[in-house]
This record gives sequence, C-alpha cells and structure tokens, in this order.
Amino acid sequence: MLVQQYVDMLGGKSVIRTLSEFATARGKEIGYENVFDYSLGNPSVAVPQAFTDTCIRLLQTESPMALHGYSQSLGIPEVRAKLADSLNKRFGMDYTGDHIFMTSAAAGALAHAFRLVTVPGDEIITFAPFFPEYMPYVNLTGALLKVVPPNTEDFQINFEAFEKMIGEKTMAVLVNSPNNPSGIVYSTATIQRLAEILKQKSKELGHEIYIISDEPYREITFAGVDAPYISKYYDNTLSCYSYSKSLSLPGERIGYLAINPACADSKTMVQMCGQISRGIGHNCPPSLMQLAIAENLELTADLSVYETNMNLIYDCLMELGFTCVKPGGTFYIFPKALEEDAKIFCEKAMKYDLVLVPADSFGCPGYFRMAYCIETEKVKRSLVALRKFVETEYPQR
Amino acid sequence: MLVQQYVDMLGGKSVIRTLSEFATARGKEIGYENVFDYSLGNPSVAVPQAFTDTCIRLLQTESPMALHGYSQSLGIPEVRAKLADSLNKRFGMDYTGDHIFMTSAAAGALAHAFRLVTVPGDEIITFAPFFPEYMPYVNLTGALLKVVPPNTEDFQINFEAFEKMIGEKTMAVLVNSPNNPSGIVYSTATIQRLAEILKQKSKELGHEIYIISDEPYREITFAGVDAPYISKYYDNTLSCYSYSKSLSLPGERIGYLAINPACADSKTMVQMCGQISRGIGHNCPPSLMQLAIAENLELTADLSVYETNMNLIYDCLMELGFTCVKPGGTFYIFPKALEEDAKIFCEKAMKYDLVLVPADSFGCPGYFRMAYCIETEKVKRSLVALRKFVETEYPQR
Repeated sequence: MLVQQYVDMLGGKSVIRTLSEFATARGKEIGYENVFDYSLGNPSVAVPQAFTDTCIRLLQTESPMALHGYSQSLGIPEVRAKLADSLNKRFGMDYTGDHIFMTSAAAGALAHAFRLVTVPGDEIITFAPFFPEYMPYVNLTGALLKVVPPNTEDFQINFEAFEKMIGEKTMAVLVNSPNNPSGIVYSTATIQRLAEILKQKSKELGHEIYIISDEPYREITFAGVDAPYISKYYDNTLSCYSYSKSLSLPGERIGYLAINPACADSKTMVQMCGQISRGIGHNCPPSLMQLAIAENLELTADLSVYETNMNLIYDCLMELGFTCVKPGGTFYIFPKALEEDAKIFCEKAMKYDLVLVPADSFGCPGYFRMAYCIETEKVKRSLVALRKFVETEYPQR
Repeated sequence: MLVQQYVDMLGGKSVIRTLSEFATARGKEIGYENVFDYSLGNPSVAVPQAFTDTCIRLLQTESPMALHGYSQSLGIPEVRAKLADSLNKRFGMDYTGDHIFMTSAAAGALAHAFRLVTVPGDEIITFAPFFPEYMPYVNLTGALLKVVPPNTEDFQINFEAFEKMIGEKTMAVLVNSPNNPSGIVYSTATIQRLAEILKQKSKELGHEIYIISDEPYREITFAGVDAPYISKYYDNTLSCYSYSKSLSLPGERIGYLAINPACADSKTMVQMCGQISRGIGHNCPPSLMQLAIAENLELTADLSVYETNMNLIYDCLMELGFTCVKPGGTFYIFPKALEEDAKIFCEKAMKYDLVLVPADSFGCPGYFRMAYCIETEKVKRSLVALRKFVETEYPQR
C-alpha cells in the first residue's frame, strides 16, 4: 500500500548519480585523484575564513536563545532588511525586507515560488538545456513543466518555439541564468525580448505570467560577460537565490526568494509564502546561517578557479575540434559530443577515466556536461586523457 | 490572480500569535518582565555549552568541504547510523541507518510522513486537544485531518469516539505524546489499546493504518511518569523527532523521521522520502547541525526548570479550585477555564497581564493553555497575579 507516485520514482536513477557512483568505485581501484570526475556540481573552493569566523563569533558571544531561537517563518526581520539593502545597492532595485522571504536554499525558494503562482493543472515553461530536478520540483506540485527546445547556436532562448508554447495555462516561465548545464548567461537583449513577449502575452491572456528566476550561479560570471539582474527587466519576477555556490555552503541550506516590489501584491505574496511553508514543512532556514549570512552579504568564496578551469577546458576542446559555446559563468561547460548518441560517447570516455554527463536528461541530446568544480591541477591532467580519448576513439576527425 | 487557497489563509490569524503580539505591545508599556506571557512554546533554557563547543570545534577543525558540502538527501550516512544505535540502546529497537531520514525538524519529518502514507482524499485521524498547526500541515497535502473529541477526564484517548471514526480512507493516526497542549503523556495501557485497535482495523480494512508519532517533547517527562516509546508497541510506526525542545534549537531546524524496521517496506519508505523531498524543496537539514547532533545524541538542555514551573503552577491552580489534569511532560498545562467561554476567561486575564491561550483552536473549548517555558522567578510572580485575577473576577467560587 505504498504511495505509488514515489515508488515509481525510485526506479528512475539519475544519470549523474550513476556516473558519480562509477567515479567513486573507480577511484577505489586507481585512486580518486586519477578519476577525472566531471559529474557533480559540488563547489570545490572553501567557504571564506571570514564566514567561518562569523559563525564562531556568533556561537561564542550571542545569547543562545537569540541565536538558536525560533526565527519568524518569513525569516529574521533584520536579515531580510539587510538583504534588501544589499540587493538595492548592487542591482538598483527597491526591495524592502517585506519583499524578501528567507528559504532553505534555492530548492526551498523554488518550492514556494511554484506554489505562489500555480495551482494543479497550470503550466510552467522552461528552456532546454535545463536542470533535470526541475521536472520533479514542478510536476510534484501538480503543475506541469513544459520545455522549450534548445537554441543550440548560442544557448540563448529559442523564442520562436517559446511563443508557440505559451497558452491559457501558462502561469510562469522558469529561467536559470547563468545556466546549468550550458554555462551560458542570458544577455540583456535576451531578457528584454523575453520581458516584451511576457508583457504582451499577459495582456492577451488576461493574467500575469511570472518569471521565476533561479539564480544560484549569479555570482559566478566571467570577465566581460553581460549578466543582467533579471528582475530589473520584468516587474513580475520572483528571484530565487542560494548561497550554496557563491559561498560554497550547499549543505547548510540557506537562500531566499526576493519578489520585485513592482509585482502586483508582492508583499502579500511574501506573506503567502509563510502559509505555503505550513503545507510543505519548511518553517524557516537555520537561524545561525541566517545571522551569519546577514554579516557577509557581499562576500563570496574565491570563485576565480572556475574561470581558470573553464578557459583551460574550452581552449582544449576548441583545439580538438569540438563544437562548444563558451560559457559566461557557472562551473559547467556544454560541448557537442563527437557522435550522435552522447550516451555512447560518454561511455567510451569512461575507459579513459573521464566522467562526462550525457545531456539527454537536460533536454539536449547529443551534448554532454562537464562540471569543472575540481582542482586546476586535475583539470590539466584530465585534458591529456581527453586528448587521448578523442585521438583514439575518433581518429578520422 | 493570486492562489486563493493561501490568500484565504492570511485572514485566519492564529490566536497564539495575536496574544503574543499583545504581550509584546504590553511589554513596551509596563516592561516585558511584568507581562506574564504564557502564550508561546519557545524553549526558555539555553542549549548546553557542550553542544556549542562541538559546533565551534567542527568549524575550527573540519574541512569546510566536508562540513558544509552537500549532504545526501536522506542525511549524512554516519549520522543516520549513530542515531539508529542511540535509539536502539535507549528504546530496545533495532533500527539501522537505513531506517532513519534526517529532516528539517519535526515539521519536515511530518511533511514527509503524511506524504508517505496518504494521497489526496485519504484521511488522518488525530486526538483533541491537538497542536493547531496539524490542520494546515495535513490539509495542504490534500489529505483530510479528522479530530477525535477529547477525553477530558484524563486527556488519554477517547477510544469510543475514535473507533467510530476509523473508515476506509483512514491511513494514519497522528499521535502527539507528550502532548501539546495538555501536557499529558499517553500511558503504556493507552498505547497498547491503540495498537490493538489499529491492528484489528488494518485487518478488517485490508490496508495498514500507520501511527505517525510526533514526539518533539519526548525528552521532557516528569518524575514517575510512564512514557512508552510508541514505536515499540506498534510495527507500522513513523516516529517524528526534533531537537527543537530537547536541545533548545528550534531555529536550527534539525530532526529526523525513524521508521520501525518491522514496518513493511520500511527501508523503501525511507528511500521514498528522498523523492518526496524533491517535490517540497526539502533536500536535507543543515549539515553542520547534522554533524553536531551526531556527537551529542544523548545530550539535553537542563530541562528540570519545566518540572519546577509545572509543580508551582499546578499546586496554585489546585488551591484556587481549578480543574486540571497534572501534566506528565512538555512545558504546557491545560486547565479548565472558570467560565464556559475560555476566550472570555482569557480576555479577562489580560487585565491582570496574564497571557493565557483559550483552547478552541486546540479542539477543546472551555480549556486554556499555559506555556510555562519562562523563568521560575516570573512564574512565582505570575501566580500572585493569577490569584488576584481569580479572586476578583470569580469571587463567588
């Protein structure tokens, strides 16, 4: 008598998980330092010492009742207010604390955002390639995730296909820029065009279409890249943020949902989040982390290694004749496989201890993802293996 | 175009919240130390220094990647295994780590438990008096919470009414012992009788009926009280625990769900929790807290103040002629009001700066709750006010 919906999901083991398990097992045979594991998007740089020092100081000096007591369900008011100020300063917004809802990282923010703007049967549109977890995240709410096919030329948005997909039931568009898995950042032109289409379609359909902007990679952008703050370009934007990547704190589950003050009923929507929390067991993110974040709002880990790694890999891929759009951020790169079936391509790579992820589950067959959140020294050694793999398996190129 | 379900909930401000706001406002007028605020169930004793020391040591010595990295969605394996050992030792169970799912406190555990055993339209039965949050917790899943009327004689279970309420759609019974708001602990005899009824009804109906045991107050029981570990008496038990009360860590959101190994498919159910998490944005509880808890599994805050306070209040209530069942645990006491409408009674009490909570929303009209998680010195002063209140407003008694 188990609930079948969840039992069925147990069968569908994620490709990434399977590959990561291969990497771990292979590591036991030949030493993990010799497995070029590009499977997992787990930050590879440490949280800054300043953040750790804040945590220690809070634990040593704050009253335990203030430090570990119940946070209000919307988050600690002072933390929300400081966060609003920081976003205003950085992005020219006009949030107040009342527009901010503290969450258990981006997954928590998304879980509330979906429930804010859809009821079961409604639709949310996202753009391939996309983070595969979006499927269960959305579909388990009862809403339906629809996926616009990729624009493989530059991995900006395939607007033609997108416009055809918008309908009566479209309540939101789920945007992830900088993007997992493509590493691409949507340009200002892309966001402006997206905003125009959504304004027009909202009018035609007689209901708002929201942008749910999932931006955990916001702070990881590379030199010279145009990286607009999406909410600045479209009033009805719900921005979902996490400190998992920028501060390398994925295990601590801390982030927020920021609702554009120009969005109709934005303060009410934040209040509604407190009600949504009651149904999904959210309550609030950890209080120690809320307080520590509030003192380090503009701090990031040393993210420069990701750009270093990206450039090394990108140059090698180009030299080896791969088709690949140069990433503008994140710690992912997304080349086209050297044969039609990327799964076969990635299987062959495993013989060279290269763990690459075929992009079928990202909605973009024929491509693969490399998560280069690993040490630069290892990246360099991996490129020797990559060269050998390509030259051996695809000699005619 | 806001989702109406949550908008409607915004109207229904909780009585407890309203009273707590009154207490804060009144505190600004006369000093909070002079407001006898019995409204909120917020622990009043500090987390033990040993726990704080563990956190600081982990932050100072652990690799940041290990400390703050992604925890597996079911929790950190070593933490789950240690927790299982501790439960086995204390309660004679035979859990392994595979039967434990780490959660964002009890609210997170309950959110998974409900979804494990019900689909929309199913029913869960609970017993008055009950924690009012159970209503949105259950009903927002699409299942329906049904409430058995109270047994006001001793606040054990009203079995006659309960048996009549069990039907085709009953999938679980939600039990909270030690109980908020009554402070009563269900006796071994109560649990045995409950287990017998559920076994028989499961057989009759041809499907399991689970006990979902919400036990955040498990460690707060008073001298001489019979406090059975419920899962020991019924195989199909899902135990939901939180360290919010035992370690005074409500803001840190750390707890677990433990599924009885004798429950059919118990390991599969834990795996299913990982899938449920994807739909509700749970992911895992904070990694620092998981690791700190694992080193302090049998530690509690100094909980003795609650029993001291309870005895002072209980003796005074008896002297003043109240009807009240003596609490066996928690930090709540649940007397009968001195007039039929407890709301009017509690309003009158406010004139004496006594903040008492009428129990209508707990499913037990005519009673009121006092949360005595406050300083003993303040309890003593409050009893002077209580005596004056009763003697002035109810002089004929």
